[in-house]
Amino acid sequence: MTILSSIKYPGDVRALSHEDLAALAGELREEIIAVTAKNGGHLASSLGVVELTIALLRAFAPPADKIVWDVGHQTYAWKILTGRRERFATLRRHGGISGFPRRDESPCDSFGTGHSSTSISAALGFAKARDIRGMSNSAVAVIGDGSMSAGMAYEALNHAGSLKTNLIVVLNDNEMFISKNVGAMSKYLNRLRTTSAYTRGKRDIEAFLRGIPFIGSGLSNAARKAKNTLKYILLPGVLFEEMGFTYIGPIDGHDIAALDDVLERAKKQPGPVLVHVVTRKGMGYAPAMQKPDVFHGVGPYDRATGLPLKKEGPPTYTEVFGQTLCRLGQDDQDIVAVTAAMGNGTGLNQFALMYPRRFYDVGIAEQHAVTLAAGLALEGFKPIVSMYSTFYQRAYDQVLHDVCLQNANVVFAVDRAGLVGEDGPTHHGVFDIAMFRVIPNLTLMAPKDENELQHMLRTAFTLPNPVALRYPRAAGRGVKLDENYETLPAGRAELLRRGDDVVLIGFGPIVYSCLEAAEELAARGVAAGVLNLRFLNPTDRETVLAEARRTRRVVTVEDHMLAGGVGSAILEILADAGATDVRVSRLGYTDYVEHGPIAFLQEKNCLNADGIVRAALALCGEKP
Amino acid sequence: MTILSSIKYPGDVRALSHEDLAALAGELREEIIAVTAKNGGHLASSLGVVELTIALLRAFAPPADKIVWDVGHQTYAWKILTGRRERFATLRRHGGISGFPRRDESPCDSFGTGHSSTSISAALGFAKARDIRGMSNSAVAVIGDGSMSAGMAYEALNHAGSLKTNLIVVLNDNEMFISKNVGAMSKYLNRLRTTSAYTRGKRDIEAFLRGIPFIGSGLSNAARKAKNTLKYILLPGVLFEEMGFTYIGPIDGHDIAALDDVLERAKKQPGPVLVHVVTRKGMGYAPAMQKPDVFHGVGPYDRATGLPLKKEGPPTYTEVFGQTLCRLGQDDQDIVAVTAAMGNGTGLNQFALMYPRRFYDVGIAEQHAVTLAAGLALEGFKPIVSMYSTFYQRAYDQVLHDVCLQNANVVFAVDRAGLVGEDGPTHHGVFDIAMFRVIPNLTLMAPKDENELQHMLRTAFTLPNPVALRYPRAAGRGVKLDENYETLPAGRAELLRRGDDVVLIGFGPIVYSCLEAAEELAARGVAAGVLNLRFLNPTDRETVLAEARRTRRVVTVEDHMLAGGVGSAILEILADAGATDVRVSRLGYTDYVEHGPIAFLQEKNCLNADGIVRAALALCGEKP
Repeated sequence: MTILSSIKYPGDVRALSHEDLAALAGELREEIIAVTAKNGGHLASSLGVVELTIALLRAFAPPADKIVWDVGHQTYAWKILTGRRERFATLRRHGGISGFPRRDESPCDSFGTGHSSTSISAALGFAKARDIRGMSNSAVAVIGDGSMSAGMAYEALNHAGSLKTNLIVVLNDNEMFISKNVGAMSKYLNRLRTTSAYTRGKRDIEAFLRGIPFIGSGLSNAARKAKNTLKYILLPGVLFEEMGFTYIGPIDGHDIAALDDVLERAKKQPGPVLVHVVTRKGMGYAPAMQKPDVFHGVGPYDRATGLPLKKEGPPTYTEVFGQTLCRLGQDDQDIVAVTAAMGNGTGLNQFALMYPRRFYDVGIAEQHAVTLAAGLALEGFKPIVSMYSTFYQRAYDQVLHDVCLQNANVVFAVDRAGLVGEDGPTHHGVFDIAMFRVIPNLTLMAPKDENELQHMLRTAFTLPNPVALRYPRAAGRGVKLDENYETLPAGRAELLRRGDDVVLIGFGPIVYSCLEAAEELAARGVAAGVLNLRFLNPTDRETVLAEARRTRRVVTVEDHMLAGGVGSAILEILADAGATDVRVSRLGYTDYVEHGPIAFLQEKNCLNADGIVRAALALCGEKP
Repeated sequence: MTILSSIKYPGDVRALSHEDLAALAGELREEIIAVTAKNGGHLASSLGVVELTIALLRAFAPPADKIVWDVGHQTYAWKILTGRRERFATLRRHGGISGFPRRDESPCDSFGTGHSSTSISAALGFAKARDIRGMSNSAVAVIGDGSMSAGMAYEALNHAGSLKTNLIVVLNDNEMFISKNVGAMSKYLNRLRTTSAYTRGKRDIEAFLRGIPFIGSGLSNAARKAKNTLKYILLPGVLFEEMGFTYIGPIDGHDIAALDDVLERAKKQPGPVLVHVVTRKGMGYAPAMQKPDVFHGVGPYDRATGLPLKKEGPPTYTEVFGQTLCRLGQDDQDIVAVTAAMGNGTGLNQFALMYPRRFYDVGIAEQHAVTLAAGLALEGFKPIVSMYSTFYQRAYDQVLHDVCLQNANVVFAVDRAGLVGEDGPTHHGVFDIAMFRVIPNLTLMAPKDENELQHMLRTAFTLPNPVALRYPRAAGRGVKLDENYETLPAGRAELLRRGDDVVLIGFGPIVYSCLEAAEELAARGVAAGVLNLRFLNPTDRETVLAEARRTRRVVTVEDHMLAGGVGSAILEILADAGATDVRVSRLGYTDYVEHGPIAFLQEKNCLNADGIVRAALALCGEKP
């Protein structure tokens, strides 16, 4: 019998000996490795916090105590220990448990997360709620060092640090977040780790202090160095202390006994406390420890070797984007690339290697990324900001106010647009069209395939206004990639097929489903045209109107919410032209979409050839 | 002849004696006070930086050197000295110069601002552009202490602090930003001001240092205090130094000679530098010095007394909102209010006084404000977040990901929705409907008048999902305010007038223009119905469809962009119902709207009774 199987309730970890706890940590790692090898997932970060998870459950009692896991992709051990062991094999599968904390999964998941740096704000909300009600439960945010580069975390620290509210922030410093460390905060944490009592014995420190000639101006280099060391010994965590937090740490996050001690101290300390815990990503699984970046988020892999279970196939949109940008960057020295800890995810690695002086990874800091790009653009450069659709939500004001309002010539590469699959509703990129379309001088594009992506990226750099280029998290269709990049006529759609009964208007790769549907419709005697819209704002009013008027039946298809999306743009064009005799059926999402395989989720929402056929037939008055 | 009139080019201030500079500062203040007394504007902050502006023009040479003014409302002296003296009397008037920096106004305005905390990112963009090109110009961000509470400023500091790029951040610490000081950073700046060499002579410090028993654990209170003092002397600006900046200051921001020195030092210092300048808001105008909060942004006032030129009239929407919330908060102890340095602006002052334990002003930190509210909501409270429409753009992800995705029961009060008038395009609230409408479980409301606002606010707290309630920066209509608040039927529109020829659908106070238009149309023989839409999502499909089908002509009217707005929602309803024989004319904005009087700007965009009449007549096939 395993230790794990003896655990019925989260609090059961409190009764275990330290020997049993070590065994439990091992069993948890086994389970996490086994399931992610099959289902894929966020392996490295979940392995890194196994002991911390156990210690948190020893120190605190959820759901009364509120533990908020920042980002939330590190909660696999948490899920197993808080009543979801039996369902853990369904991780990230449709209908199975989510890869992120969710309130509808367990009362122990106090706050749903997915995006970074929200935890301190949420935990402070819980803490204030407790104070108003006169309760005494704990409120704890567990936040990684990477998440500390986002402004939102600072806003919350700044607020909490000025209050007397009891709040515990566990800073999980894993020395390495999604991409390489970025920013002054990260350097600061490194100094804390290397200079503090964590690495020096108390005796050493005292001896050291006695020897310092610390007063006086014009310090020698040696004295300056000594002064800096003194600073970290005399004033550990001075930055956090200045922000109003009591700093405790740094301590070894894989030592449960040490964690027990430090969390008890944190509980007794009034006011806001920051506990600095040092962990190692991928701990306990050699391949993940060696390549924590590769094992940040993985697909299914071979457990023995850590190698991905290969899927041969065409390059992804992301890969083609990265390659194209490298070539464009060679010809045009004004192209600079900016990302926010998504260099790897958005395919910029090669660009960063080739043009290091024209590449900026600013850390998890989407707001800054966009406005930095605005500054570069106004000096005549051609910046491209490359981020996931869902994270543009973090920089909407910067897109609007700093870039578009002054018509700064920035290109926004919107990766992971549309459904993202297993990461689910926190990460689906299904709001960007509505967000971007309301901006009057921003041109929005979507390519039907990876070859068109090449041409569109080139085209984007030729336009005299801000541009957003959206493409999905998906493999391309395997079409031939043209050697020479063309500039596409701005605002012109591509009529791929003519048909007199109905026109299917697609935006992005869904156009191929429209083509399939047109074939199927033809077989059923319905002549369907297919329009690859390519551009929104300007939209090809002329072609849209011509096809709509001719067929009097339009099906719009978009990998996006319906409200305010592509279909809505088409309706606006028709209404403005007074084209009242056209029936329009709009396909897209009307509600949040759960996690699961993209194709399956799209099918459920009629976003496949079958769904399009049914919509077209319904318009034509035939039974689907 | 005044000194001011002798200045032709910005650089002319360099040749002036310090006596002449003092006179110049006085003349600038005179001009600023005289023009804002007539036109209104951001007086206190502009008066506070007169000397700093002069010093910046002595140390730097725009447009080659890039000066980025954070927020930008403090740039009146800047505008006068950089070629806009003759046009300065047109400040904030339609067609006149803007109240904010604008690139299309002067090459010296390197970056358009309006929203806070963007300056460091933009200046870093300019700095990197310089580095890539191998130039040597300076890049300077001038940022107030209030703006330092926003995460975006931290993101930029964190990035810049890890680079070796030459960048100067002038922290304009005026001890008081828009609202009262909030947050740990603000407390930190206060300690710097009061403990540092700014207030102590060097001799004192040395004597002080010699007397400290600073080593050892278990420090007495006196020793702890001494240690803290030591910290600020030995390590001035330690927080900024830890963030990778060289800290210089604090210095008196009204002493031009001192500023000259310190800016020269900053120019010579390699890498990122932070210059801490202490200024006083409203400096040189007694009423503004006494009440800097009142004189933050003012309408026209009497120059002698500082009293506003009174406009008698009905209460504003903001005032009625504040009063209503106080009454609701009395009956319902679960109502808590959160704002981001807009307590005064959004009418929460009285609530804050009455229920201090249920009121949080988190500083300029919209992201944190929204997620803090999410935490409170999930613990059973009924939080209302009260911010301006334009600033929700800063917290879009938090609205979507932290509140709506987990259906946290937060009410968003969206003040300043629609045009805001003289503050212009950076502040117009004309994107919120599109932003909010795409969120599947968020209900959006807009009252036709201040009485309906009362009922809607009550209604908002009864709904089981997130709610946004938008209302304009405007006086109400002066309608009677009902004593008892009703709960309006959710998702139901109000048919104010029946008409068989056309139906006018309004959202918000523009409904009264629809009523006026209906009268005018009746006089011309056209029977127009008027529908007060009240709710979007759920929208009253039934009534919309019934009226649209009966009249077959719809005019939608919204104080918002057209793309994805109310008209678009109506088109979606009609299309989904297959109501093809209805002609729809949509009134709203299609481009950025300039600054000027709201009524004038609305008229220009057909958003008044006349414009609605013309649209309706056009639909009816009659010449407008």
